[in-house]
Amino acid sequence: MKDSELSTRLRGPVRIVGTGLLGTSVGLALRGRGIDVTLADASPSALALAVDYGAGRKHRDTDVPALIVVCVPPDVTADIIERELQHFPRAVVTDVASVKLQPFHELVSRGVDLTHYIGSHPLAGRERGGATSARADIFYGRPWVICRDEETPAWALSLVEDLALDLGSTPIEMTPQEHDRSVALVSHVPQVIASLLATRLIDAPDTAVMLAGQGVRDTTRIASSDPALWLQILRANSEPVVAILRSFKEDLGTVIEALEAEDVESDPAPGARRVIADTIAAGNIGVSRLPGKHGQNHRFESITVMVDDKPGTLGHLLTDLGEIGVNMEDLRLEHSPGAQIGFAEISIVPEVKQRAITDLVARGWRIAGL
Amino acid sequence: MKDSELSTRLRGPVRIVGTGLLGTSVGLALRGRGIDVTLADASPSALALAVDYGAGRKHRDTDVPALIVVCVPPDVTADIIERELQHFPRAVVTDVASVKLQPFHELVSRGVDLTHYIGSHPLAGRERGGATSARADIFYGRPWVICRDEETPAWALSLVEDLALDLGSTPIEMTPQEHDRSVALVSHVPQVIASLLATRLIDAPDTAVMLAGQGVRDTTRIASSDPALWLQILRANSEPVVAILRSFKEDLGTVIEALEAEDVESDPAPGARRVIADTIAAGNIGVSRLPGKHGQNHRFESITVMVDDKPGTLGHLLTDLGEIGVNMEDLRLEHSPGAQIGFAEISIVPEVKQRAITDLVARGWRIAGL
Repeated sequence: MKDSELSTRLRGPVRIVGTGLLGTSVGLALRGRGIDVTLADASPSALALAVDYGAGRKHRDTDVPALIVVCVPPDVTADIIERELQHFPRAVVTDVASVKLQPFHELVSRGVDLTHYIGSHPLAGRERGGATSARADIFYGRPWVICRDEETPAWALSLVEDLALDLGSTPIEMTPQEHDRSVALVSHVPQVIASLLATRLIDAPDTAVMLAGQGVRDTTRIASSDPALWLQILRANSEPVVAILRSFKEDLGTVIEALEAEDVESDPAPGARRVIADTIAAGNIGVSRLPGKHGQNHRFESITVMVDDKPGTLGHLLTDLGEIGVNMEDLRLEHSPGAQIGFAEISIVPEVKQRAITDLVARGWRIAGL
Repeated sequence: MKDSELSTRLRGPVRIVGTGLLGTSVGLALRGRGIDVTLADASPSALALAVDYGAGRKHRDTDVPALIVVCVPPDVTADIIERELQHFPRAVVTDVASVKLQPFHELVSRGVDLTHYIGSHPLAGRERGGATSARADIFYGRPWVICRDEETPAWALSLVEDLALDLGSTPIEMTPQEHDRSVALVSHVPQVIASLLATRLIDAPDTAVMLAGQGVRDTTRIASSDPALWLQILRANSEPVVAILRSFKEDLGTVIEALEAEDVESDPAPGARRVIADTIAAGNIGVSRLPGKHGQNHRFESITVMVDDKPGTLGHLLTDLGEIGVNMEDLRLEHSPGAQIGFAEISIVPEVKQRAITDLVARGWRIAGL
């Protein structure tokens, strides 16, 4: 796929305010499609860095942007939106903050005319922030929530939709309330829980962390996120987050009581046993609600191939898969400490599994579990 | 690596009681090294299946095992250990249950002579159970905790160590108490928390789960585990699990209070703000305690290469990496919904990063973020 083959919906100049991870990434993506991008940032050195990265050019006083994308931290988002609406009365202003109701309320309470403002939120990001982590492709295939209201003119809405589409995202319309409740559930609460879980490890004996496997790694991975950013997000969305955390705490209390009712010498109340089993079973149902890796609900099957820990071995395997004509949906490499051998777990559609195994074995590969 | 090249420490016959995931996997691994394995299971059909899989042969009355590996569910582990010690007074009996203190207490309270019993626990497993999920390699590179006491004869200890080493594991000596506290922290509590978190998703609107990203997926992945097995594990290790869950609940209560103190209209107490930021910061410290992917503490750097969603493309990339002479430490494939392009994130040692990028670009690959 060459950049020059891409057609765009948006016409520039697009003005981006704030050149952190998201602002720089938006700039890189639009520039990659040949759209004129102007950049602004409160920090001259952050601005210069983003320009050097190729995310756009420094804004000039004569520039008249059609669309402004505010990519600043949540606690100053409302201020910057208000300023941009005043400076550029003809432009449509959107923002990418991960909370939508608070800035909206703040702008309404200040009496700002919001006809040209449409809040939005691309569900994209990385654990590392800043322009140096920016990538043109982080929006690709991700949802981009757009919060319009009845007064939003259709032409203004379509500008923000064009932005999402040009960046490869899928626009989804939601009210600010719907959005904030949704991200509380799938993003903000998991962050709090992962941080609290990882906190248990601080004073763990070395021997205990030596036993850590993939489970505790996965459940705590996002605990490495930025405290300053998350303070802002959690403060701004505290109401729905608290509601979910309260239900979590209540259920946690029930599990603790049930476990305390356990007595290994005697037989515990059958009710306690049931609470524990029901807790794990409810988790089974909950996790099944998440869409599959590709946003679909059908499952892939996997084949695990044993690969020597030598340069090129995995390459040969995947070349063989290509020659066999099997398209991997996902690949996960497991590599044990100090081991001379690793495991490549390949996800494929069920229809080709048997043929893939037969052909791989015929080419000399060892399939785990066979 | 050919199986025939492997030398073994153990001499057979090794008797395996219980042919679920772990028992069948131990059998497959020992058979792969040419060791005579006899199998027993309360279920004749489960036993026949494991024999068909090649995990060993059916036990005969004339067999005199040197080592017995009890691989039955936690709630019957003590019973089976006692039975095996009685039937085979010269054999060393070990078990692989994920809780060590409860069966030990139970055996002591029954007055069983435990001179020939050594509890152990390989930190290995899969989300799917049963013989059909068994793999000879699941122990490879994983820790194998061995709980001896002062009365354990050295020759008996070395038999269990040999088992761990023959299966590619790293033997680690711990007391049953140390073991149970450690797995409570790195396995049992994460399971409860992941299940409780996934439970929040049960009644989520479809639009909310549509926004799910990698964070909520990772934090809830293990919530798909088996309720019946986890009921037994959690009951058997309730004391250390409850202690950790209590500290979690207390900290969760503090976070909820701090978030409730937030009021978007006015300025909240500065203490509340600090609690929230400290919670995320403490998670940063906790997650940093986990050893790196390869059991070491140094970090790898990554390069993200854009790959077309066509059979063979990833193979060509990895072949190129092999030709360049770069050894991947890990590979993670990201593939966006409906996208024609994916991202291969390659982990490598920092020393070769710049050269790898230069050589890959020279071979026509597009590196994300460049």
